Amino acid sequence: MLPLRAVTRSSDTPDSGRVDPLLEVREKHRGRRPGDAYVKIVRPFEEEFQRGDDAGELIATEKTVLQRRGWTTNIRRFRTWLIGRPIHRDREEHERLTKTKGLAIFSSDNISSSAYGPEEISRVLATAGVGYLVLTLPLAGLITVMLAIVTLSYRQTIKAYPKGASSYIVASDNLGSTLGVLAAAALLIGYVVTVAVSVSAGVAAMTSLLPDIERYKVVISVVLVLLIMLGNLRGIRESGTIFMIPTYAYIVVMLGIVGYGVARVTFGEVPAFVPPPEWEPVEAVQVFGLFLILRAFSQGAVALTGVEAISDGVPAFKPPEWKNARTTLTWAAIVFAILFVGIAYLVARLGVQPDGSETYTVLSLVVRQLTGEGVVLVVAQVATALILVLAANTSFADFPRLSSFLARDGYLPRQFAFRGERLAFTTGIVALSLMAIGLLIVFRASVSGLIPLYTLGVFIAFTLSQSGMLVRWWRRREEGWRPGLAINGLGAAVTAVVAIVVGVSNFFQGSWLVIVLVPILMAFLMGIHRHYTTQDQALALDHIPEKAEVAAKPIVIVPVARLDRVARQAIAFANSISPEALAVHVTNDAADADAIRERWPDWAGSTELVVVESPYRALIGPLLAYMDALQRQAPDRPIVVVLSEVVPRHWWENFLHNQTALRLKLRLFRRKNTIVADVPYHRVD
Amino acid sequence: MLPLRAVTRSSDTPDSGRVDPLLEVREKHRGRRPGDAYVKIVRPFEEEFQRGDDAGELIATEKTVLQRRGWTTNIRRFRTWLIGRPIHRDREEHERLTKTKGLAIFSSDNISSSAYGPEEISRVLATAGVGYLVLTLPLAGLITVMLAIVTLSYRQTIKAYPKGASSYIVASDNLGSTLGVLAAAALLIGYVVTVAVSVSAGVAAMTSLLPDIERYKVVISVVLVLLIMLGNLRGIRESGTIFMIPTYAYIVVMLGIVGYGVARVTFGEVPAFVPPPEWEPVEAVQVFGLFLILRAFSQGAVALTGVEAISDGVPAFKPPEWKNARTTLTWAAIVFAILFVGIAYLVARLGVQPDGSETYTVLSLVVRQLTGEGVVLVVAQVATALILVLAANTSFADFPRLSSFLARDGYLPRQFAFRGERLAFTTGIVALSLMAIGLLIVFRASVSGLIPLYTLGVFIAFTLSQSGMLVRWWRRREEGWRPGLAINGLGAAVTAVVAIVVGVSNFFQGSWLVIVLVPILMAFLMGIHRHYTTQDQALALDHIPEKAEVAAKPIVIVPVARLDRVARQAIAFANSISPEALAVHVTNDAADADAIRERWPDWAGSTELVVVESPYRALIGPLLAYMDALQRQAPDRPIVVVLSEVVPRHWWENFLHNQTALRLKLRLFRRKNTIVADVPYHRVD
Repeated sequence: MLPLRAVTRSSDTPDSGRVDPLLEVREKHRGRRPGDAYVKIVRPFEEEFQRGDDAGELIATEKTVLQRRGWTTNIRRFRTWLIGRPIHRDREEHERLTKTKGLAIFSSDNISSSAYGPEEISRVLATAGVGYLVLTLPLAGLITVMLAIVTLSYRQTIKAYPKGASSYIVASDNLGSTLGVLAAAALLIGYVVTVAVSVSAGVAAMTSLLPDIERYKVVISVVLVLLIMLGNLRGIRESGTIFMIPTYAYIVVMLGIVGYGVARVTFGEVPAFVPPPEWEPVEAVQVFGLFLILRAFSQGAVALTGVEAISDGVPAFKPPEWKNARTTLTWAAIVFAILFVGIAYLVARLGVQPDGSETYTVLSLVVRQLTGEGVVLVVAQVATALILVLAANTSFADFPRLSSFLARDGYLPRQFAFRGERLAFTTGIVALSLMAIGLLIVFRASVSGLIPLYTLGVFIAFTLSQSGMLVRWWRRREEGWRPGLAINGLGAAVTAVVAIVVGVSNFFQGSWLVIVLVPILMAFLMGIHRHYTTQDQALALDHIPEKAEVAAKPIVIVPVARLDRVARQAIAFANSISPEALAVHVTNDAADADAIRERWPDWAGSTELVVVESPYRALIGPLLAYMDALQRQAPDRPIVVVLSEVVPRHWWENFLHNQTALRLKLRLFRRKNTIVADVPYHRVD
Repeated sequence: MLPLRAVTRSSDTPDSGRVDPLLEVREKHRGRRPGDAYVKIVRPFEEEFQRGDDAGELIATEKTVLQRRGWTTNIRRFRTWLIGRPIHRDREEHERLTKTKGLAIFSSDNISSSAYGPEEISRVLATAGVGYLVLTLPLAGLITVMLAIVTLSYRQTIKAYPKGASSYIVASDNLGSTLGVLAAAALLIGYVVTVAVSVSAGVAAMTSLLPDIERYKVVISVVLVLLIMLGNLRGIRESGTIFMIPTYAYIVVMLGIVGYGVARVTFGEVPAFVPPPEWEPVEAVQVFGLFLILRAFSQGAVALTGVEAISDGVPAFKPPEWKNARTTLTWAAIVFAILFVGIAYLVARLGVQPDGSETYTVLSLVVRQLTGEGVVLVVAQVATALILVLAANTSFADFPRLSSFLARDGYLPRQFAFRGERLAFTTGIVALSLMAIGLLIVFRASVSGLIPLYTLGVFIAFTLSQSGMLVRWWRRREEGWRPGLAINGLGAAVTAVVAIVVGVSNFFQGSWLVIVLVPILMAFLMGIHRHYTTQDQALALDHIPEKAEVAAKPIVIVPVARLDRVARQAIAFANSISPEALAVHVTNDAADADAIRERWPDWAGSTELVVVESPYRALIGPLLAYMDALQRQAPDRPIVVVLSEVVPRHWWENFLHNQTALRLKLRLFRRKNTIVADVPYHRVD
């Protein structure tokens, strides 16, 4: 028996009882033996489909996604085990975040910067000369003031854009699409670097505790990114629960340590640090002093980069979204400010110097100096490592959302806008993970190496967002526009200055790379946009036809390699869609051609056979030329090429079959007026 | 206008004038303006096709291969520039080899072994202690005697198998298919190693002249393999001409040097070498003396491996093939014997010791000692390098031919049996090149490292071939069977002993790898064979039907993503092959579904639309489930899924489109009773 069922002679009447597209008919089953007929009433839509509200509508149930047969069953099972069962769209509302969870998810980026911000400041200052380390605290204070300004600005932005206050949206809306794309490009790069920086800093917190693992840090970082990716592919809710514990643990532990340290310093239990005379900076370096201070400031400004995260994620909060997001933003800023200034104060007062090899973090040295190598150190380092590694999650919440906005607007491939079965933007999550892993490998998971790439992009986005708000206030002049304008104006000015300082002072350390990458990425986004736009215009219909359309009757040809069941099935199908299907045998072997021509009348009856001899042994060229020749006779009729392929039972069998069919399909795909009908043959033995 | 031409309303009559499959009709052309009609008589078969001798037969001309339009034009041009225009099958006879060319092509492997054979003997002897070096000459003599025996044996094999006397064929024919496959596996491995060894030795000849390039030897080797590959893809004739010069240059130069050296030693101009007293081997090594002598012999036996090459290539000679091949074999053996013994004699008499670093070859040291660093050294090294690098070509002639035999018998994928446009076995040539490059990289292009892999496989094949001849003589008892049996019996015994010696003495140096690989490769070949056999049985037809066959009328469905020209074209095609084609729109967006349902009646008229809502956002699962539900209503009818895809204009556009269609196609390919019709949409703007 042939796998393509009910192959009949031309004299038989093919079964052409109409099927019911809405699945409401009674099904007829016939028993195995003749005369064994019975009728069974089945309503398939009750099982896998529900009836929709409107006529001609069916709603798929979870079964259609989960219950797959055949070779994909195991992949499906593994996938369900890995990322969980699909989530119904109605549950989306329930997956929203409370303020408590929102703080954990979106501010872990911001708050966790306190773990490495002071270190990065002092690391640059130390290169100017250890004497400069006294500037750590003033610089931290300056950055905190900036944070206050930016936070105030963003509170306004969130209120104005409750559906997502991403710099991309604010800038596109008020400054035009080009500056919007600039903001988007800067942010996309920023998010990728966030993941790399946070994970690297988290691993550094671990190496401070266990110096032996230092040489595995790249591998550990990559594994961590993969785990975070998996968590995010599972969807929002679970990740919220996962991320609450470390964030709050870090806040509690660090507030305790800062409080304890400040108290001991205040009550004189720890003597204030006085720089020894040999700490005097050497002459040559002093010339570069101001420049290095600017660089130190730039490195510290990384601490502000987390602010954008909450604004971008407004729609993920429970309603009222903008109010909850605003409150969360304010709390995150306050917690961060206390920790950041507190840690910087302790670094300065305890005279902690950065470790050149990046094995021990400055924060770990502070804790070590305050409490020794005891339980507190272990708890502090574990909490730090966890919040840092999980801070990368902020980007996993924001990058996919931003890329879905971009895809929706046609700047990225449409896959980025598609929510997976778990309501997560699968493509964005995977893309972000791969790029972050690339960065981790290239930069050997070094925080100091990565940070220069980081701050510039985020501050460009800040500046554009604030400038957008400025334009918006000015254009609308709604109630209270004057103070609003003033706040966003100040925000725009401050962030613009920082962007310039960061770009110039870190130019050779890495911001050149951002300055090169942002325009490339912009060109990429805009190229995709142009493609989609022209394509959509080209595909749109000028007028709506009045009736159903029918193409000219196709010319149907069946390339036949040899006389077997596969060819027979293809010919049977070709005859079912055309009364004049034509078999074509291309061969380089005249004897073989004779043999086939001889057997043909017995084998395929009235179906006509043309043998094309190919003395140059090529198969595809002569077949295409033959199709061209047929086409010249009937330029209006499409040509259907019926290809039959054996379905392999094992993956490796693909190498033994169908290679020619695959090449032919690729060529035919580009031929105009050509349709390829693929008739798979399933072996029945 | 739609790219799929002549889309008509259902009320129109589609053009269904029958096309002439033999291209002999007159074509009608219509002018651009109405009423501008004219008729032009065209006989397309005169241009791209010729009429064949039999009815229903066309013969493709070179135009069908060369004149391709569109995106492949440039690839075609580059390919023609690289490997030349296609060769007509009738020219195959003219591409055959004379004895002079045959000696150059098939014996370069054999003769060139004289360049490294003596070196490999002395290299092993030197590890036993320099005193053992005096054994170089006796071992070379022993190997020459063996060569004589093997050559006599193979002269008989060639006569018995004039269509190709490969060990695979001889063993399969007389000893059964399993031992045939064993011979084939051993030979395939041997050929790959031949390429690696010859190229490595050729590069070593170069580094002897220019020691600075020693560190680039892997890169140089790989580039050389690629060049040889290209030469072979161009076909036999050119490669014959290329390879004549270096082979004969090497023979002339080396005969000259050997003659000159022997003369000088004989006439006492060079004092005979007397080993100094410190050359006495130390005690500990003497225990392993015999074992090391066996290893040295094994390494030297590599010199015989070239004999198989000529036997395998018999059909490439001009007729009478077997006589020409036999004569060539004898000449190759004589030339080789003179050079091999001569060089070994000089090595022994001049007291040349191998260089531990493999930078200077022993042969180059001999020439240096005889003639100094002058012109002769340069000429000798260049000739040696050329013949060695080109000796790899022997494998390029034989490996593809052997793999085509294996493919013809179903032991390798069928692509290996397909002759490319230049009459070369393209797949075999490329496969051999890639594997040889892999070996060169793994073994850092070291001759001594590669040789242990080499000899064992070839001697297994020798033994099987000779044993096969033995059985053949015994079974047939033709005229002169007694001396024939004696000669092949001696050959089988000698080669079997060598195979065992090589396998045991080199076990840890590399023959273990061959002993592991040969069974794996055999299992691989036999697995493919089993697959093809069962498949062919399953696909064969039990009975021949009497008339043309027609499958049951298919159910035709068109997944519609949105309402645009692409969808319209697909629906038009679906309506042209079925009166009840059904459009299906799967969506996760209820609003979108409403919009489409509302526009539908105006847009597609009587074609029915079913909307499947998918709250879990999956597209493919619900579509497949829907197809299953339809199928349950009519289990006998195949389902045709009409997919429309935009044909990208640039390769990168593939990433922006058709991703879902591709995944859907992969899934549908495995669904039973399902046909995918691919309707490409070509943008017309």
